[in-house]
Amino acid sequence: MTESMRAIGLYKHLPISNKESLINVTVPKPKVSGRDILVKIKAVSVNPVDTKVRANGDEEQEPKILGYDASGIVESVGADVSLFQEGDEVYYAGSISRPGSNSEYQLVDERIAAKKPENLSFNEAAALPLTTLTAWEALFERLNISADASVNQGKTILIIGASGGVGSMAVQLADLAGLTIVGTASREETISWAKDRGCDYTLNHHQDFQSQLESIGKSQVDYILCLNSTEEHWGHMVEAIKPQGKICSIVETEGKLDLTALQQKSATFVWEFMFTRPLFQTEDMQEQHRILTKTAELIAEDKLTTTLTETLTGLHAENLREAHRKVETGKMIGKVVVGAE
Amino acid sequence: MTESMRAIGLYKHLPISNKESLINVTVPKPKVSGRDILVKIKAVSVNPVDTKVRANGDEEQEPKILGYDASGIVESVGADVSLFQEGDEVYYAGSISRPGSNSEYQLVDERIAAKKPENLSFNEAAALPLTTLTAWEALFERLNISADASVNQGKTILIIGASGGVGSMAVQLADLAGLTIVGTASREETISWAKDRGCDYTLNHHQDFQSQLESIGKSQVDYILCLNSTEEHWGHMVEAIKPQGKICSIVETEGKLDLTALQQKSATFVWEFMFTRPLFQTEDMQEQHRILTKTAELIAEDKLTTTLTETLTGLHAENLREAHRKVETGKMIGKVVVGAE
Repeated sequence: MTESMRAIGLYKHLPISNKESLINVTVPKPKVSGRDILVKIKAVSVNPVDTKVRANGDEEQEPKILGYDASGIVESVGADVSLFQEGDEVYYAGSISRPGSNSEYQLVDERIAAKKPENLSFNEAAALPLTTLTAWEALFERLNISADASVNQGKTILIIGASGGVGSMAVQLADLAGLTIVGTASREETISWAKDRGCDYTLNHHQDFQSQLESIGKSQVDYILCLNSTEEHWGHMVEAIKPQGKICSIVETEGKLDLTALQQKSATFVWEFMFTRPLFQTEDMQEQHRILTKTAELIAEDKLTTTLTETLTGLHAENLREAHRKVETGKMIGKVVVGAE
Repeated sequence: MTESMRAIGLYKHLPISNKESLINVTVPKPKVSGRDILVKIKAVSVNPVDTKVRANGDEEQEPKILGYDASGIVESVGADVSLFQEGDEVYYAGSISRPGSNSEYQLVDERIAAKKPENLSFNEAAALPLTTLTAWEALFERLNISADASVNQGKTILIIGASGGVGSMAVQLADLAGLTIVGTASREETISWAKDRGCDYTLNHHQDFQSQLESIGKSQVDYILCLNSTEEHWGHMVEAIKPQGKICSIVETEGKLDLTALQQKSATFVWEFMFTRPLFQTEDMQEQHRILTKTAELIAEDKLTTTLTETLTGLHAENLREAHRKVETGKMIGKVVVGAE
């Protein structure tokens, strides 16, 4: 007989105000094989990707389970698993193409999971994987910034949206890499949060970028990381990027873009999508295991801190709907986590 | 009294069929200062950028002199020049923002010039600078491909437009770097030329890319260099690029592009514009001196060959109009050079 488990899922893609948008369901408990580990979930976090997947799509035949950030305990391992054993405490983001973490148990490929930071609680750890992987891949892989701070002396990065989930990690990582950081933030509390994470300067993304950059003596920057509307900030980025500079964005656009505006500067535009590796099963997908392992070390050494700001206790539909509501405001500082207990 | 010199220029931006499109003029002979060298021109080459600048723009008050590829002899040097002396034989592309090489003498910043390959004639050397700088910067800087062939084993590049001026150099450089090269070419003579330069495979860019790539077992490639219509090939490139792959183009678009189509793959798009360094006077503009110097060494070692295919003798308006006509057909194989004598 198939064992079952509790989960939070959806059949219809609905606005979060609708109680049917996320519901408690019972589904079969998955079984491990190959390189998968089965994890008993202790905490999950909610990201903008959850709200996008929840709000868009056709009716589902089986309950669709969201959740792309988790911490938990390894319950069992597949025959080909070599990185983990039963009882390990782990954290990971997972894959957009598999059932998510909003459930009692979840399968995840060992190559994209890591042991959770020893000095963090499950709640604190669950806030980290998706945003850290995104920020890390964006800075050190897509923008190809050196992790060696001595190489980056005098280099400046503009981070558009410095106080959100990814921004809060990107600022910390860019600071460790020795970059001068200009972050955008527009409210007193987000400015203060961004500066506490390591921003050297902040500017208001609702006002003219160029005059604000000039006022701090940074009329052009070496790198831009866009964590906010790519379309709205396209013109600002084209103007602010140095010749031969690099722009990375994580926010898709509805319309087309004037890419040729970057031609004279021989500038680079690169996307960071954290799910590229697990989605395409790239040869280097185990890099995500390495990044999360390195992150755990940096956390243990107090060089990085968790960005958890709000915790809801009890992994059920009502709390997840509340977390989705908070993320959908677009005004979250740091991260919201839903703990199992 | 100001000395004068002969040059080929234009007042009106006209179709090449109009005899006024390029005319013989007499203009003041320029004087050196700073880091400029004054070069007596021995040969020039014509590139697509010449025909674009010639065809577009408002009426000029002074004769506008085109020409962005030259070889010649240093006639005199500015007070701050340290890389050259009188009598040196040099080659360079120059800057889009200064008077071009279609004249008896030309000023060029020493940081973007180099000594010409010793084993090449002035005509053979004049065919090289713009296309080599473009191909080199595209491959080794914008796409960040290693020059170390052992690193590139198993990596594939698709070069769209493999038999033209830039393509002919890009294929040779990619071959030196140990990449597997798929080049597009559609005529018997361009296919043969591209293969002789180092293409491992060719495909016809007027037919479906994907099925042709699959037929050679290369359904996705690590790098794409687009030397042909970026707009026309956008969809092909989106499909053919590997997850985390990189696309470089040198051809501007009239319309906007669906950049978000590259998001899921976390792919890179980067422009190569050879004039970025001289135009913005970037701190690293002397890299162009270094690239052309290295190119001269590779030519001397027979690792690279000139791409000169047609020579016209006599640097006057009639020959330059003929060279522009040839370039405007879009069917040039290699390069056309106009020699001073």
